[in-house]
Amino acid sequence: MDVTKALITAAGHGQRTLPLQTVVGRDGYPRPVLQFLIEEAISAGIEDIGIVVNRGDAALYREAAGGAEGKLTFLEQDEARGFGHAIACGSRFVAGHAFLLMVSDHLYVSRDAGRSCARQLVEVACAENCPVSAVQSTHESLLGRFGTIGGRLFDGRGGIYEVERVVEKPTPTLAEQELAVPGLRLGHYLCFFGMHVLTPGVLGVLEQMLADSAEPRQVTLSTALDAVDQRERHLAVEIDGRRFDLDAPFGLLQAQLALALDSPMRPRVLSDLVQLLAETP
Amino acid sequence: MDVTKALITAAGHGQRTLPLQTVVGRDGYPRPVLQFLIEEAISAGIEDIGIVVNRGDAALYREAAGGAEGKLTFLEQDEARGFGHAIACGSRFVAGHAFLLMVSDHLYVSRDAGRSCARQLVEVACAENCPVSAVQSTHESLLGRFGTIGGRLFDGRGGIYEVERVVEKPTPTLAEQELAVPGLRLGHYLCFFGMHVLTPGVLGVLEQMLADSAEPRQVTLSTALDAVDQRERHLAVEIDGRRFDLDAPFGLLQAQLALALDSPMRPRVLSDLVQLLAETP
Repeated sequence: MDVTKALITAAGHGQRTLPLQTVVGRDGYPRPVLQFLIEEAISAGIEDIGIVVNRGDAALYREAAGGAEGKLTFLEQDEARGFGHAIACGSRFVAGHAFLLMVSDHLYVSRDAGRSCARQLVEVACAENCPVSAVQSTHESLLGRFGTIGGRLFDGRGGIYEVERVVEKPTPTLAEQELAVPGLRLGHYLCFFGMHVLTPGVLGVLEQMLADSAEPRQVTLSTALDAVDQRERHLAVEIDGRRFDLDAPFGLLQAQLALALDSPMRPRVLSDLVQLLAETP
Repeated sequence: MDVTKALITAAGHGQRTLPLQTVVGRDGYPRPVLQFLIEEAISAGIEDIGIVVNRGDAALYREAAGGAEGKLTFLEQDEARGFGHAIACGSRFVAGHAFLLMVSDHLYVSRDAGRSCARQLVEVACAENCPVSAVQSTHESLLGRFGTIGGRLFDGRGGIYEVERVVEKPTPTLAEQELAVPGLRLGHYLCFFGMHVLTPGVLGVLEQMLADSAEPRQVTLSTALDAVDQRERHLAVEIDGRRFDLDAPFGLLQAQLALALDSPMRPRVLSDLVQLLAETP
């Protein structure tokens, strides 16, 4: 399986302006979050990137995208009808191929700057020839923010799981009963990292669900993936890195600190930090 | 003297998008920098705010301004001709009144949340009935970034100075020879805080200089204020607070940290910080 296309959803309410926020990279250069996402995709071998935006926002995003414009296609969503619908807006763009899906209100920071989160994910998808979701071991107090999987170790390999269930924002009780995964720390579950490789099969299931539903907003990617798990193989891979949900309180601050502390500017940032701490009583 | 109008310049190259960046306030609510600036002005008794933007940017700024729209007038600058020219664009808007000038790539954080930086400045201008510049004691290593004043204590009062010289971005040598101010820490000078109360007299001098100059970009506010100092009283007031230059590397990060550490979220931000430090080797 080759993965050369990526879809970035940027039409959601909170997502509308987050990709336009400026963050200083590990290299010291400030740029909009959108450029980090584009670089992330390109680092995984992606050649064409479709960005789902609200009608009228394409010009703003094109300007924020910097030099990568030639690789971009803007897909305008007429009305906000949820995340599932936004993914389906990319159906013609991905044209029957497997594709990398990323959300635009996350910033992904791999542990090893030379091996991006998207690359780790795409490598598994290409090797195993099936849909793969990036996941991260996450404390149960955060379950209300993420899609969460249940499953078992795949092929006995560490960090790769065969997904049996997907539940969007489960309660801790439901998670404990149905989504426990052996080998994780106590009270931890495998939650979505905001990045997937999806296949035409998954997209077809999602589109069918949207067509059948009276309330398309209730059709989430988790619902579709849960249905897919009954009939075809769906893997999950633990990513060696962190995702920052920029829409969460202080999400941008944390993402910026993580990048700054993992850069040559670390000593300076630490010294600024100590000074700020000294100045605020 | 009453000060009921403010002018915010947001047309400069780096300033174009900085006011649209989102920052979480001391109250925990995220909003664009522009809203912090508008709140800052309103806290000082300002009723009408003129914002100088690049042609075509007014809609973007109006959206970012939130609920304060009724107090705003957008003044479009046709071509980028420097900071002095941007101020002169506000001439008809201020219509012969004293006004508060703020720059849009700064975020101002007062020590006492109940007494904003702008309010401290406007109070002095109203009491003394003359132009007043907000200043901050600044280490000589940072002189290359700011307008710097020379002068002496006004009326024997701490923190208020009668300005005798203004030099834009002086060298440390020039500063040592001509801008030393008694009572400051060694190697420190009084640099602009990015906030002034200007009078029609100052604006007139600036406009005349722009008209006479073959290169309007070289006419800075500092040049005009330096000329004004020869003929009328111009004060400077040390502000009990900090200004963050958002265009500087990690300026946004520092501003966000300062606000977060001075908020009820402080314990949580500190705990996130320690975790980030533990995770980055």
